[in-house]
Amino acid sequence: MAGNTFGQIFRYTSFGESHGSAMGGVIDGCPAGISIDMESIHADLQRRRPGSSGPSTRRKEADVPQFLSGLIDETTTGAPIAFIIPNEDARPQDYNHLKDIYRPSHADFTYHQKYKIDDHRLVHRASARETAGRVVAGGIAKQIIAGSGMQIAAYTSGIGRFKLEGDFTFSELEQAKLSKMQCPDENLSEQMESYLDELKKEGDSIGCEVRAVITGVPAGLGEPVFAKLHAGLAAAMMSINAAVAFDYGSGSFAADMKGSEYNDLFTVHNGHVRTASNNSGGIQAGISNGEDILFRVVFKPIPTIMKPQKTVNREGKPVIIEGKGRHDVCAAPRVVPVVEAMAALVIADHLLLSKSVRL
Amino acid sequence: MAGNTFGQIFRYTSFGESHGSAMGGVIDGCPAGISIDMESIHADLQRRRPGSSGPSTRRKEADVPQFLSGLIDETTTGAPIAFIIPNEDARPQDYNHLKDIYRPSHADFTYHQKYKIDDHRLVHRASARETAGRVVAGGIAKQIIAGSGMQIAAYTSGIGRFKLEGDFTFSELEQAKLSKMQCPDENLSEQMESYLDELKKEGDSIGCEVRAVITGVPAGLGEPVFAKLHAGLAAAMMSINAAVAFDYGSGSFAADMKGSEYNDLFTVHNGHVRTASNNSGGIQAGISNGEDILFRVVFKPIPTIMKPQKTVNREGKPVIIEGKGRHDVCAAPRVVPVVEAMAALVIADHLLLSKSVRL
Amino acid sequence: MAGNTFGQIFRYTSFGESHGSAMGGVIDGCPAGISIDMESIHADLQRRRPGSSGPSTRRKEADVPQFLSGLIDETTTGAPIAFIIPNEDARPQDYNHLKDIYRPSHADFTYHQKYKIDDHRLVHRASARETAGRVVAGGIAKQIIAGSGMQIAAYTSGIGRFKLEGDFTFSELEQAKLSKMQCPDENLSEQMESYLDELKKEGDSIGCEVRAVITGVPAGLGEPVFAKLHAGLAAAMMSINAAVAFDYGSGSFAADMKGSEYNDLFTVHNGHVRTASNNSGGIQAGISNGEDILFRVVFKPIPTIMKPQKTVNREGKPVIIEGKGRHDVCAAPRVVPVVEAMAALVIADHLLLSKSVRL
Amino acid sequence: MAGNTFGQIFRYTSFGESHGSAMGGVIDGCPAGISIDMESIHADLQRRRPGSSGPSTRRKEADVPQFLSGLIDETTTGAPIAFIIPNEDARPQDYNHLKDIYRPSHADFTYHQKYKIDDHRLVHRASARETAGRVVAGGIAKQIIAGSGMQIAAYTSGIGRFKLEGDFTFSELEQAKLSKMQCPDENLSEQMESYLDELKKEGDSIGCEVRAVITGVPAGLGEPVFAKLHAGLAAAMMSINAAVAFDYGSGSFAADMKGSEYNDLFTVHNGHVRTASNNSGGIQAGISNGEDILFRVVFKPIPTIMKPQKTVNREGKPVIIEGKGRHDVCAAPRVVPVVEAMAALVIADHLLLSKSVRL
Repeated sequence: MAGNTFGQIFRYTSFGESHGSAMGGVIDGCPAGISIDMESIHADLQRRRPGSSGPSTRRKEADVPQFLSGLIDETTTGAPIAFIIPNEDARPQDYNHLKDIYRPSHADFTYHQKYKIDDHRLVHRASARETAGRVVAGGIAKQIIAGSGMQIAAYTSGIGRFKLEGDFTFSELEQAKLSKMQCPDENLSEQMESYLDELKKEGDSIGCEVRAVITGVPAGLGEPVFAKLHAGLAAAMMSINAAVAFDYGSGSFAADMKGSEYNDLFTVHNGHVRTASNNSGGIQAGISNGEDILFRVVFKPIPTIMKPQKTVNREGKPVIIEGKGRHDVCAAPRVVPVVEAMAALVIADHLLLSKSVRL
Repeated sequence: MAGNTFGQIFRYTSFGESHGSAMGGVIDGCPAGISIDMESIHADLQRRRPGSSGPSTRRKEADVPQFLSGLIDETTTGAPIAFIIPNEDARPQDYNHLKDIYRPSHADFTYHQKYKIDDHRLVHRASARETAGRVVAGGIAKQIIAGSGMQIAAYTSGIGRFKLEGDFTFSELEQAKLSKMQCPDENLSEQMESYLDELKKEGDSIGCEVRAVITGVPAGLGEPVFAKLHAGLAAAMMSINAAVAFDYGSGSFAADMKGSEYNDLFTVHNGHVRTASNNSGGIQAGISNGEDILFRVVFKPIPTIMKPQKTVNREGKPVIIEGKGRHDVCAAPRVVPVVEAMAALVIADHLLLSKSVRL
Repeated sequence: MAGNTFGQIFRYTSFGESHGSAMGGVIDGCPAGISIDMESIHADLQRRRPGSSGPSTRRKEADVPQFLSGLIDETTTGAPIAFIIPNEDARPQDYNHLKDIYRPSHADFTYHQKYKIDDHRLVHRASARETAGRVVAGGIAKQIIAGSGMQIAAYTSGIGRFKLEGDFTFSELEQAKLSKMQCPDENLSEQMESYLDELKKEGDSIGCEVRAVITGVPAGLGEPVFAKLHAGLAAAMMSINAAVAFDYGSGSFAADMKGSEYNDLFTVHNGHVRTASNNSGGIQAGISNGEDILFRVVFKPIPTIMKPQKTVNREGKPVIIEGKGRHDVCAAPRVVPVVEAMAALVIADHLLLSKSVRL
Repeated sequence: MAGNTFGQIFRYTSFGESHGSAMGGVIDGCPAGISIDMESIHADLQRRRPGSSGPSTRRKEADVPQFLSGLIDETTTGAPIAFIIPNEDARPQDYNHLKDIYRPSHADFTYHQKYKIDDHRLVHRASARETAGRVVAGGIAKQIIAGSGMQIAAYTSGIGRFKLEGDFTFSELEQAKLSKMQCPDENLSEQMESYLDELKKEGDSIGCEVRAVITGVPAGLGEPVFAKLHAGLAAAMMSINAAVAFDYGSGSFAADMKGSEYNDLFTVHNGHVRTASNNSGGIQAGISNGEDILFRVVFKPIPTIMKPQKTVNREGKPVIIEGKGRHDVCAAPRVVPVVEAMAALVIADHLLLSKSVRL
């Protein structure tokens, strides 16, 4: 099948391998007449870059998308928006020593089983570099939904045992986008950073958790019974490399809660029907209720580690593998703008879909 | 949009309201020549029935699907399979006292906001009764994937603080399908049952957790980069009423794990490449790896409780609502076969999709 | 694949076999709040009925759809609208003498080759009776687009050598819907009718041509580059049993025309940009231009004839087949409301899609 | 909506404007392991080029697609195949004198009405140059279906009153691909060519007709009731710029034929069930029957002519427009490989879909 297109009427098609000439994508179904702020897309890409320490060290020369179509003077025309992000430092030969080896918890084995192509470059499609294109497409989606008053902020809420506590205002979360760890708590960020340094020395990696808030959402987004808003968010998040868990609102805690604790009582505030709590994370019966949308994604540890691991090669012979080169030790903080981007794609699609619910 | 169809080439379209004449659905894209065992569909429907205590009390007269098309002598023909499940006890008038009230954490408010229909019967589409059709469609999907050696067993793994521990064989999980609580631990089941009775007396409800195992899965199912196998499972599960969290493999625990702990080392067993552990829950890089697929779904507490709750009506006036009538106090055990059904729909679709990956 | 769903966001799923218990369908993505006039749906169904001689002989007892969902007090709710049309006179045994025979230009051979089901009832899905459901769905679509001022009239424009000439006002075409031959020229209608009687005596059948006009179309419907409005109409029409040719505007005549003859010059009429001619049939570059949409569909002769024909059976043995029972001798006039219905489905879908082109 | 993707599981997404930096596309759902012959894609692109006089004058430097992804050593990997075709001679300023004018029968008016972008460059998406990408994608599709023994040949069958007569072998049609007019009759080709020269001097354009044959088709392709094989072909053909009519088999002639004349009698030939005639054009009940698929597409005259035409500008003021520059005077012969490409996309998609009809 075509698994590389996401969305129903605001559709993003992704292409590219990490060691090919370019990554890229095509956005179809984008409304006409939206003026695109390229700077904010660059800023998000910068947050996603390897070794990034926030926009302050922004290296302008890298990961700059080249738009090929769909824009006139940086305004959308309704035509498909195609872009490429050249792979300036593609070095497929760096992986030659691994070419016959199934790396543990990597794509090598499953891609080989599925596509039956005997070339280790096959898995360059499974690289996290593919998410750069998502950030571009999501950056456009963010600007579409901003027109209806919606804003998204994701943030690092846990790296290993270092968990974020407390509540933050949306503006504090926005501020955290400028920080290295993409986390609104400065002290915790420092601890996280030291921990990552320590793991790097150890040659190990660690799992993490990212939370997100979408604010300004109108009531009415989401399409029962299968295209519920949180079902779309779940699929979007689980399509990100290394994502292993999704929940929204009170999430997993709901398993232990009583109805009398969980239910969000309706009340009237300034003439608007609101809920007194937000255990539902802004979504009830699959449809946004006007409260902030809150969700969480858990990412497994990066599978590439520097410690020796036992595995097998394509011939089924046991081998010992040792990682080499420079790898992240944690999906966060780089995955944070990817979470935002995917959320934006979901919301933009549902915003457009909602236009046809009443004539 | 059309939110009532699920799947890419094995497609299930759902229809019906809980207090209309019938629930039902249409399965399109079903392969021809599959002989359908109606008994196993009935058995699954029985597990989903209100007040069910397992197949032993099976009331044959109720929730029996009537197949309208797509079968000759109970064998699929390739034509769309339509079925209805009559609503024999539809009593929309039972809800008349609620007709102007937004019940907390129910569909009343969001459906009203979205569809702008001023009739409380609007939300009868949001009823959990809609999942009966899913069990029928999923029952057919189960039989399709069984032809490729796959079997699914879901089970109640937690109700409030009563959590299931230990490992169970697939055959023990199969056996648990015959039990009232759909749980493989008899002692725990009794505690759960007492707890539910207690809550019923209290007039409260409780959240729960359901786990599932899919066994016999061939390596190679799943379509990167968006239609990853676990992304499909996540969307499927989150489309079930009251679902609030999804994870697979080690799930949320991965947030605290190191790569050296999480990675599933490859090994060779009886000439086959296998993994020594299964933290990946049978899915790597979005594609099945041949190990058992393991996932978990958390359900929030049933929103209807017998305790008085503060809410507002459609005019924004504060009112006190008190539940009436017979309602479940927990999504489990009745939701267990629904989890299986949705998983079967996902797997059947991916099985068919996988036929075109190599010519 | 799922070939039984039509449309992108206004979606119609069809089911049923001619000798099963019921035909039917599900409409998903229908906007909420549309009050449905059931009488006009019944009138269209009546025009499609066997032996119909127009609404005057309307037999109320037959082909009355039963709506199962999606309506409250005959108003759409946004939920899927399911309906069934019971097959009151199903007599699969009438075909028993044909059960091993491949009828020339029928579905027997291709369905057998595709689905590999050894039962002649397999082809009951290919019956023209399936179009009854399309008329119901199209009847709802007509009412949706009527809200934006659009009306559709199809008419019999040729039966064999009897071709309609001259121009007719939309109101004359509307009037023709009440006539037996669905043709606006009374004299020609009589000739057509005599000709059909003659063919019936001969035991032969004949091809025909149906034209259609859609009036009141706003400029802007159609989605380049693949979902052009006429591409959608073409697919819709060619999905009707026995359709073999589609053209729009000046159609096939365009092959012999020069640009200076064909081009529709723009002019201003009452302050609106209009075209002086309509060779483009209301569609330019795949998008409606505000002029009447004009198209034509050709249907092959009904394959069942009473004359003996040489064919083979499933074992590849030569046999002589002779038709039996009551069969139409021409797709027109009964196919006329089906053409309207399919056009309405296309236009309704594009109307909804157009809501998202500008925010 | 997303109107720029074609196909269900073998999906082609198109992008690019004629005066932007590049045209291009993405093919998703392509089976893995297909070795691509780039030469045959180049040859088809050459047939589509402006001023082409067949492969003999092939200018290698232009319209060479650059593949960005999805291939390893020119073999498909199952990943999306993206390519661009740079626009080396983009001169949007050439159209500046037209920027406020609605050219008759062009895209100016409808694109303006739909997208409401006040810039004449908007219509560069509607350029026939977009079909270059289709030829690339179709070239890959051709190679996929060739693996199942299928070959496609389209040819110019009429330019104005110059109509092709007689029957041609598939090999003669293959041979015609090397000729300037893409027509298997040399004498007629010369007449067509003189006629086109004459029209060019006149400053006028002309309509045309293209026929196509698909040979080696297995029985069983096509998905009732909406995704019939000819419905897919019709949609594909009508999505090509300037297409106005589609028919298959005996096509429009069927309107005047009796069943006893039209029906294709089954017979047995060398142990295979075959039809004695092929009025059905290889498709019965929407499914291929194993005979050659035959269809025809009519194209209207190119709208740009050098003669003065009356039209209006965006302000609704009458103006006289005169064409400038170099334009084709007829869609044929350049459109011939585009017809083949679109047919190949349809057939490849249905070939893949057919893999799931029986397990």
